[in-house]
Amino acid sequence: MPSFNILVLGGDHIGPEVVAEAVKVLQSAESHPAVAAKGIKFNLDHDLLGGQSIDVHGIPLTEAVIEKAKKSHAVLFGAVGGPKWGMTGELRPETSVLDLRRALNCWANIRPAKVPSNGVAKCSPLKESIVKGTDFIVLRENCGGVYFGDKQEFSSEKPDYASDVWGYHRWEVERIAKMAAYLSRKHGGTKGPSRITNIDKANVLAVCRLWRDAVWKIRDAEFPDIPMTNQLSDSLALVMVKNPRSLNGVVLCDNIFGDLFSDEAAAVVGSLGFSPSACLAGIPGDGTNSPGMYEPSHGSAPDLQPNCANPVATIQSAAMMLRYSCDLDFLADAIDEAISVALDDKEAGGLEVRTGDIGGSASTTEMGDAIVASL
Amino acid sequence: MPSFNILVLGGDHIGPEVVAEAVKVLQSAESHPAVAAKGIKFNLDHDLLGGQSIDVHGIPLTEAVIEKAKKSHAVLFGAVGGPKWGMTGELRPETSVLDLRRALNCWANIRPAKVPSNGVAKCSPLKESIVKGTDFIVLRENCGGVYFGDKQEFSSEKPDYASDVWGYHRWEVERIAKMAAYLSRKHGGTKGPSRITNIDKANVLAVCRLWRDAVWKIRDAEFPDIPMTNQLSDSLALVMVKNPRSLNGVVLCDNIFGDLFSDEAAAVVGSLGFSPSACLAGIPGDGTNSPGMYEPSHGSAPDLQPNCANPVATIQSAAMMLRYSCDLDFLADAIDEAISVALDDKEAGGLEVRTGDIGGSASTTEMGDAIVASL
Ligand SMILES: CC(C)[C@H](C(=O)O)[C@@H](O)C(=O)O
Ligand SMILES: CC(C)[C@H](C(=O)O)[C@@H](O)C(=O)O
Repeated sequence: MPSFNILVLGGDHIGPEVVAEAVKVLQSAESHPAVAAKGIKFNLDHDLLGGQSIDVHGIPLTEAVIEKAKKSHAVLFGAVGGPKWGMTGELRPETSVLDLRRALNCWANIRPAKVPSNGVAKCSPLKESIVKGTDFIVLRENCGGVYFGDKQEFSSEKPDYASDVWGYHRWEVERIAKMAAYLSRKHGGTKGPSRITNIDKANVLAVCRLWRDAVWKIRDAEFPDIPMTNQLSDSLALVMVKNPRSLNGVVLCDNIFGDLFSDEAAAVVGSLGFSPSACLAGIPGDGTNSPGMYEPSHGSAPDLQPNCANPVATIQSAAMMLRYSCDLDFLADAIDEAISVALDDKEAGGLEVRTGDIGGSASTTEMGDAIVASL
Repeated sequence: MPSFNILVLGGDHIGPEVVAEAVKVLQSAESHPAVAAKGIKFNLDHDLLGGQSIDVHGIPLTEAVIEKAKKSHAVLFGAVGGPKWGMTGELRPETSVLDLRRALNCWANIRPAKVPSNGVAKCSPLKESIVKGTDFIVLRENCGGVYFGDKQEFSSEKPDYASDVWGYHRWEVERIAKMAAYLSRKHGGTKGPSRITNIDKANVLAVCRLWRDAVWKIRDAEFPDIPMTNQLSDSLALVMVKNPRSLNGVVLCDNIFGDLFSDEAAAVVGSLGFSPSACLAGIPGDGTNSPGMYEPSHGSAPDLQPNCANPVATIQSAAMMLRYSCDLDFLADAIDEAISVALDDKEAGGLEVRTGDIGGSASTTEMGDAIVASL
């Protein structure tokens, strides 16, 4: 009787609203006869993060939440932050997210770039003919590189120079390369492994020469059947706009490149409202059993009126959770399909329900209801 | 009697072809009565670079060429490289370009992102409604940052770690900030200075906190009238695709960010065939009088048949040369206008001459002739 403990952290502003829709979808999936027959149960525990936590506990992330997160199968998270709590200082809501990712050692950040339905391909700033069929995953190393290298800050005594060290250990690159292989098989499915595009700037940076060497050694030794090519980071910046379909598969990036290219990819598919993400601390099924963290890529949107936000990215994140933390691909597929039908044009057999950010007028709850209805 | 010494380095493959068209345009401009009346003369000296230089002299960049370059007002360059000379090893054609830039201390790289005529807005992968009216300049710091920081290479003795230092000195940031101010005024023209968008990742990197501090201190002290805003690098990656017009003005980047975002910008406007560049060693008119280097952003395209390449980026680069190294804005404007007319649809009063990369069938020389004709 597979049962999964899920810690639900709505966060601030639209966070709890979009997470509530994802919970609704999970509960509806759970009660479906085919799922109930397998005895699948989601045990949801709710807690506070970010500004809500500051208001109640005085800090954005409590030890109790960290402990609960570590003991759960997965964390489903909305968004944090807002003008009430400020943007600077020690007690920023934003630090809670980075701290929680670090506490869970989530070194792999997975951000798919896929138009969720034909009906919303027109939301992309790209021509429909160019974006149609785009389906790649940006895989970002999330715990190393220039984010965590030695920092020399400038100060009033030393105002003239500052630096960060952009370094990688071989083992850090090897584990993310293995994750790329895992994702390539998962993404390719029965069609066989998808192509991995390895991103670096090895013609200029020493750290990228190690990166490239480590990625290829692991690939040649452990998954020689998976097609892989190199692409320089500047060329990727161009290709992602000119011909995003050519990247279909897995786009493997270091931390800072992944930060930039996952945002560029979100723009290409048309909306942050379609950009889910997963942060993992191990390859699913490898026995580490560390909880993953799942969240939409957008923020807490303090300016939005209540019940206006697009919950799709959060519901997609919940589907990723089923895929990577619960090994329930069939259910994840069903949710992705339900999202597609809910969004699609009526003339294509869809419900054509869309929120304001993608040119519709549906409320957050109506969008969630439509996805439940098509499930 | 203003006369300008210009060193012309065609380089390899399509390089000499596209440069020949730019020379044709310069000579036609020179012989125009209004220009001849002012006594303006371009003294062109031709020499070899890259593979051509390897074939004749055994090295891709000779001391003689460096000396000539230093003594000229400007260098007009095509492109280098090709399979004949290989991609690795000491004698790569590509090193000649980086070495020449360094010899000339060209610390400011200027890459405009502008659709050259309404008729070719449709070449962009973006919807015409989104790309129309895009007109910004990516200004890239070109001699510092992680490109030139201390490198720790991995080796067979030390295979497990590699790193680069991403550092900036305050004076390096200050001089590029001043260049941004110069460009903002030049770009805004009679409408007043254009907005500067300062790009960094100050929420994560120490080097970017210095960068932001230095940029703002210079701005507040020396050009408080110029509007400036900050944009985080990840957010820029998204905005450049979603709403490129919102960047109209100057986009100020460090070396590695500028490498990525100038390529993303080229994709946005539709073709590397429309992406000229200038590399400067000083602010025009500040008395340093160091020569600038002008080149299309594309490569030498060894696979292309003869007389097929698009010469527009090189001709645009020549126009930038007139603007920044010769103080001949009126002539640069006239060439840009002639390019626009040559490319534009017939029904909009243009000649509708276009090369294969942008959906036409004109040859390199026909494209150049059309621009001369409209001049
Ligand atoms: C908020 C910021 C520190 C963070 C990052 O750079 O990792 C964000 O941009 C992200 O991509 O999750
Ligand atoms: C060839 C390479 C070293 C160079 C760079 O990264 O500067 C190129 O990408 C450029 O932008 O001119």
